[in-house]
Amino acid sequence: MNRQWRVARYPRTDEPIGPAHFDWVEQPVPEPADGEFLVRTLCLAPGPAQRGYLSPGHADFYGTVPVGEVMRGRGVAEVVTSRHPDYAAGDIFVGSLGWQDYSVQRPRGAEFVFSNRKIAAPSRPLPTTTLGMLGQAGTTAWFGLHEAGGLRVGDNVLVSAAAGGVGSMAGQIARLKGAGRTVGIAGTAAKCEWLCKVLGFDAAINYRSDDLAARLRELFPGGIDLFFDNVGGEILNQALANLARGARVAVCGYIASDYAGHKSGPANYHHLVYQRARMQGFVVFDYWQRFAEAETALMAWYRAGRLSDCEDMDEGLERMPESLGSLFSGGNRGIRLCRVAADPAHLPLLARNLASP
Amino acid sequence: MNRQWRVARYPRTDEPIGPAHFDWVEQPVPEPADGEFLVRTLCLAPGPAQRGYLSPGHADFYGTVPVGEVMRGRGVAEVVTSRHPDYAAGDIFVGSLGWQDYSVQRPRGAEFVFSNRKIAAPSRPLPTTTLGMLGQAGTTAWFGLHEAGGLRVGDNVLVSAAAGGVGSMAGQIARLKGAGRTVGIAGTAAKCEWLCKVLGFDAAINYRSDDLAARLRELFPGGIDLFFDNVGGEILNQALANLARGARVAVCGYIASDYAGHKSGPANYHHLVYQRARMQGFVVFDYWQRFAEAETALMAWYRAGRLSDCEDMDEGLERMPESLGSLFSGGNRGIRLCRVAADPAHLPLLARNLASP
Repeated sequence: MNRQWRVARYPRTDEPIGPAHFDWVEQPVPEPADGEFLVRTLCLAPGPAQRGYLSPGHADFYGTVPVGEVMRGRGVAEVVTSRHPDYAAGDIFVGSLGWQDYSVQRPRGAEFVFSNRKIAAPSRPLPTTTLGMLGQAGTTAWFGLHEAGGLRVGDNVLVSAAAGGVGSMAGQIARLKGAGRTVGIAGTAAKCEWLCKVLGFDAAINYRSDDLAARLRELFPGGIDLFFDNVGGEILNQALANLARGARVAVCGYIASDYAGHKSGPANYHHLVYQRARMQGFVVFDYWQRFAEAETALMAWYRAGRLSDCEDMDEGLERMPESLGSLFSGGNRGIRLCRVAADPAHLPLLARNLASP
Repeated sequence: MNRQWRVARYPRTDEPIGPAHFDWVEQPVPEPADGEFLVRTLCLAPGPAQRGYLSPGHADFYGTVPVGEVMRGRGVAEVVTSRHPDYAAGDIFVGSLGWQDYSVQRPRGAEFVFSNRKIAAPSRPLPTTTLGMLGQAGTTAWFGLHEAGGLRVGDNVLVSAAAGGVGSMAGQIARLKGAGRTVGIAGTAAKCEWLCKVLGFDAAINYRSDDLAARLRELFPGGIDLFFDNVGGEILNQALANLARGARVAVCGYIASDYAGHKSGPANYHHLVYQRARMQGFVVFDYWQRFAEAETALMAWYRAGRLSDCEDMDEGLERMPESLGSLFSGGNRGIRLCRVAADPAHLPLLARNLASP
């Protein structure tokens, strides 16, 4: 059988996303036609953008997934049977699989494929890493910092939701590219400690317990040169009041504003004038044809052991709605992935074994 | 006697600026020392930035004028007596005069000087025009459109406070530089008519009586490419929801937000992400060394009769506090100037005689 999560209804803007928005369905495993191949999902990557797939008002931005269809999502899979000459059983495939055990695929040019046979555990990178540190979180952080943020050597960088998937990569990339001070904002003391001790941030601010405005003034006496913002809301507002001359705000996400139904905005935006600063929105998909730039750099750092592990594995297809929902309530630490198949044969491929190079 | 307006107290952020914030003082006319010269003020230019001179919290942005000192302000003056070899009685001087009849000046490199003798009425430009269309309103519009706004031929351009000093120049410059559609927002039907019939805007929106959101959708079916914003508040918010892909918002001013004490912000800022758009703050003083770029282009258009008159002359030094205050309540139409001296000898210099080239 093919277990699936299908879209049941769209969340309201002020409502957390979770199991209520999906139906669990069991279907026969589909058959590939000529030129197609059947894959079995090994691991999925829940991502904040997936909430956008269920927001019809944003049709220009995300393609909405119709109610009743399988939820869209990227993952890593193993080819089971193939009727395409370039794909063979056992090959590893990374692409848009949907929230399900099995899917029929055809080459689309955007997927990442390598042969199972070439993988010896502990392989570097693991297939899951192409979904995680070397995947969309990594490319989003890369192009956001460089293109929207205009990252320069010596910039003092602030990252919000720094213990999230994109944030944990943004802080590491900024540091590796020669940022001055790199400061992360997170919501628990444990996450703040992780940012500093594991990921190499220079400092962290706990927005729940610290005086955010005071800490920003203290940590950025000359102002913030680059703010990589995943959050919006009061965090963005306070950051705007602490920008340096010529600062850049890379607007990646707005989780806080989303939950407020976009009813409030950053009152301190007028500091953009005082500081001749900019806010620049971006969408990582625009850089699709330049992903190799980011992947090459990230892979080199990864292989050199310079990127710290920031993947956070959940377990089981049945967990996907909660796993996605937890991204909006701070339930993850780093890049959330979800292991769907855990057969002994796949465990070496999916093991999280990054600590030892 | 030298009549002066001195700063009495600073306005609260939620309080209109006006006569209550200034003291009227009469002093002896000062004497120039060696290397100095005495000038008599002919005309002053009240500007929205002057409110910032009375906002101590913005000290990094504007230099605050201390309580008890003569209010700072730019104007055009005639040299009365000179102890500097380069200046003679009768020369016309444009510079920082203060809100007063007489001031002692020395060359500072930022002023504009020409000899009275070379002026034959109707001279082009009139001395007042160097304060107005060819002055700070013109350079602010020029650098805001080009540098912060990245103006491109074919851009569909929206200007808020379009019947204000900077706005009336921004719309004309956009049109003359080959913008697609140029639309202005103003607060009365008469101003809207003036924008379209005199200044050459393609359309105008009356934000008080029109349905702003509906009109923006109608006038910008493909979205706004460049929004030159002097206002903030709900106008900025609605414009953000109607941006085109890759749009640029040049943030020049925020009169609406100022009056609200900066308590609200543009909730629709997340459209920056959808549209990969940017908001860029700017301050015209940063382009000081490039003012000749703007002045050369504006002068050429002016002499060719391609810039329509958008100066709005008030009368009398005693009117200055009201004249400044009126800028924040829509009391002006175009660039507010205030004639201080109106002797028959000066009238040819100060006549508003732009209609006939």
